[in-house]
Amino acid sequence: MNDYSQLEERLNYTFKNKQLIIEALTHKSYKKPYNNERLEFLGDAVLDLIVGEYLFSKFPNSNEGILSKIRASLVNESGFTLLARKLDLGSYIYLSLAEENNNGRNKPSLLSNAFEAIIGAIYLEAGLATAKEISIKLLEESHPKIDLDSLSKDYKTALQELTQATHGVTPNYTLLDSSGPDHKKEFVIAVTLDDKTIATAKGKSKKEAQQKAAELALKELKA
Amino acid sequence: MNDYSQLEERLNYTFKNKQLIIEALTHKSYKKPYNNERLEFLGDAVLDLIVGEYLFSKFPNSNEGILSKIRASLVNESGFTLLARKLDLGSYIYLSLAEENNNGRNKPSLLSNAFEAIIGAIYLEAGLATAKEISIKLLEESHPKIDLDSLSKDYKTALQELTQATHGVTPNYTLLDSSGPDHKKEFVIAVTLDDKTIATAKGKSKKEAQQKAAELALKELKA
Repeated sequence: MNDYSQLEERLNYTFKNKQLIIEALTHKSYKKPYNNERLEFLGDAVLDLIVGEYLFSKFPNSNEGILSKIRASLVNESGFTLLARKLDLGSYIYLSLAEENNNGRNKPSLLSNAFEAIIGAIYLEAGLATAKEISIKLLEESHPKIDLDSLSKDYKTALQELTQATHGVTPNYTLLDSSGPDHKKEFVIAVTLDDKTIATAKGKSKKEAQQKAAELALKELKA
Repeated sequence: MNDYSQLEERLNYTFKNKQLIIEALTHKSYKKPYNNERLEFLGDAVLDLIVGEYLFSKFPNSNEGILSKIRASLVNESGFTLLARKLDLGSYIYLSLAEENNNGRNKPSLLSNAFEAIIGAIYLEAGLATAKEISIKLLEESHPKIDLDSLSKDYKTALQELTQATHGVTPNYTLLDSSGPDHKKEFVIAVTLDDKTIATAKGKSKKEAQQKAAELALKELKA
């Protein structure tokens, strides 16, 4: 039997039932009566809830649309592949020789699925609180900056992609106004396309106002 | 303040924090500083996990693809609307006059979202075990027969829909063979299209074999 102690140390969790960790690490190509797909199914839902609740508490003023977007940026194959690599899951996975020769241990889908299965297995054996503690710790270590700012950047990027496709131009952001005392400044930004104003928005920083303006412009252009 | 005692009785749960049930029942049209969208976001993930784990335990031999399909048939707007109606959620929802006049209390999306928000609120206040108990009870009452059979029927229906669209004909199921002693019979069924065999499958009953054959035929025709 393999030694899982290093993996368990990285997880900060010791499996009571070793069959559970074995199942979580078994790719379907290995042709055993079990594989990690069922645990992956469970782990996927566990992680959706854990990350959803984490964001729900962390951003008490954000609406459901924002929360969904941040979650989607964390809960996906590339995000989980990152966590799987940190745990070095690849070297533990049981897989067929063919899959092995096909660089299977390094495939994002394999790694991401094994990570979900591991979390599913911990949930089954130890419950939600333990699975939550372990997942959030891993997540915070790999995403030191989960914040609205880094999310909102996506609006500017998305707007630029859209306008280049539809109008062949890049949007411009213009400062229309700034007011208020230093500790409570407010900025008004207009986003323009070919000198035509598409949207304006206020914010506590230029960056915030730009991001809000981009979001509004996106809605406007898609309407 | 409204009286929620009848609703709480139907849920078999009494909210300690009444603001939580109010928020869960408040549609965004009501224009309060809060609405039920954040709780709906949370409840959606809670229900995905609860139903996923329920199916994971109930069907220990089903693979992840089957579990996902059964879950999708339960965790969706029409399923949750059914549960919301059983709870008579519609008469409790806070919504704008415009939405009210627009038959809002009867809209599937409004009802389904309010149901998810209620489960999200129970999860927040009382944890996963309580939310699980309440949801599973409601689910089992409205879906007395959550089984693989009623799911697999969908394969035959899906195949028929597909072949009528692509070939203008209905598939036929033919018994090719039955063998084994009475208590351990095995049936072999072929599914044919215009007298051409698309797939054959074995099963412990004719029904099971037909369903498996339909599933294989679907894969074949979509390949």
